[in-house]
Amino acid sequence: MKIVAASKILKANDALAAENRQILNQKGVLAVNWMGSPGSGKTTLLEALARYWQGRRKVAVIEGDVAGSIDAERMATLGLPVVQINTDGACHLDANMIAQALEELPLETGELLMVENVGNLVCTAGFDLGEHLRIVILSVPEGDDKLVKYPAIFRSIHALVIAKMDLLPQVAFQRERVQKDLTRLNAQAALFCVSALRGEGIAELAQWIEAHQLGETPNR
Amino acid sequence: MKIVAASKILKANDALAAENRQILNQKGVLAVNWMGSPGSGKTTLLEALARYWQGRRKVAVIEGDVAGSIDAERMATLGLPVVQINTDGACHLDANMIAQALEELPLETGELLMVENVGNLVCTAGFDLGEHLRIVILSVPEGDDKLVKYPAIFRSIHALVIAKMDLLPQVAFQRERVQKDLTRLNAQAALFCVSALRGEGIAELAQWIEAHQLGETPNR
Repeated sequence: MKIVAASKILKANDALAAENRQILNQKGVLAVNWMGSPGSGKTTLLEALARYWQGRRKVAVIEGDVAGSIDAERMATLGLPVVQINTDGACHLDANMIAQALEELPLETGELLMVENVGNLVCTAGFDLGEHLRIVILSVPEGDDKLVKYPAIFRSIHALVIAKMDLLPQVAFQRERVQKDLTRLNAQAALFCVSALRGEGIAELAQWIEAHQLGETPNR
Repeated sequence: MKIVAASKILKANDALAAENRQILNQKGVLAVNWMGSPGSGKTTLLEALARYWQGRRKVAVIEGDVAGSIDAERMATLGLPVVQINTDGACHLDANMIAQALEELPLETGELLMVENVGNLVCTAGFDLGEHLRIVILSVPEGDDKLVKYPAIFRSIHALVIAKMDLLPQVAFQRERVQKDLTRLNAQAALFCVSALRGEGIAELAQWIEAHQLGETPNR
C-alpha cells in the first residue's frame, strides 16, 4: 500500500495544472473552470453560452461528474465536442483528469474550453486544473448567505455569476448582500446576474469571457 | 509528519460513531443526520420542524459549517440548545466532531437531536456520525437528476425529503423521476415532499421521525 500526503498531492496537482495551462496557451485555447453547488444551473448556463457562441466561436466541453453522463449528453445534443469525466466518488476534478481529457479533444486556435466541475462548493476550491478563468455559479434559490459559509472558493475566483434570476420574485435573496460579501472576500472578482432560461445577462458574460487574455491566471 | 490512510480514518470514524450511538441510546436521544446541497433548505426545514415540536418534544441542534455561525444563530433564536461546529475547510462532519459536541449538550431522555451536516452531496455520504436516521434534503430548483449524478449518498439514507415544493410551478422538476431513481437505488427509503415556507408536509415528516426506535441503524 502506498500512502501519499495531501500537501504532496496538491503540489503534484499544481505542477500538472501548469503543464495543462501551457498546452492550452500553445494551442490558443481559453479554458474556464465552472464551479457551483449541485443544481446551481451550471449545465443550463453552459447551454445558453454555447447557443450565444454558435456561429461565432468554437466551443468544447469537459463534463465532470461523480457518476453518469447526463450533462455530456446534453452538450453533445448541441453539437459540441465533449468529454465526460467520471470521478468515481471524488468530489472534484483534478489536473490529471483534465490532462487525460485534453488528449481526447481536437482543440483549435481560438476555441473556448468550458470545464464543468463536480457540484461542490468545498472540494473544488483547492484544485487548479490549468484553467485561465475560475467562475462560481450561485443560484438565487440557494440563498444569499453562501459566501459566508463557504468563503474559500469565493476567494479564489475571477467571477461570480448569480444564476436563476427569474426566481428572484419567489425567494428571499438580497443581491446587495452577495455583492458586499464578494467585495470583502475578493475585491477583484467580477459579478454577473443571469437567467439562462430567459437568456438575460448571457451576452455580457460571454463577452467578458472572450475578452480574457491567455497566459497566467493572476487572481488566485 | 504523520500520514494516515483513508481506510484507517474511516474505520476509526466508524468505531467512534458506534460509541456516539451507544451514548445516545443510553440517554434515550434520537439523532438525525441532515444532509443536502448548499442552499437546499436544511436550516429552514429544521426551523419548521422545531416549530412543530415546540411544546411537544425537546429538540437540540448541532450545526456543521465550513465557516461562520449563521445557522446556529437562527436556531438559538428559536430558543433551542445549539452547538456550532466549524470544520475549518473539511467538506463533512465526522464522528469525532459529534463526540465533542455531545459533551457540550445537556441532552434529556426523549429529546430529539438534529445534526445539520455541511452542504455537500459527496463527502457527507461516507461518514457515520452515530445518528439513528440519515435524511437527504433535495430542493426542487436543484433539479430531478441529482440521484443519477450523486448515487452514493442516496443509497445510504433512510429518507429523502423533496423541499421547496412551493417552487414547483416555476421550474422543470419531475417528482416521478426522483421516486423512480430512489426506488432503484434504495427501495427501503421513505420519500416526503415539503414546503417549509408554507408548512406543508412538516407534520408527516416530524411524526415519521418520532416513530423511529432507538438502537442500531439498519439501513446503511
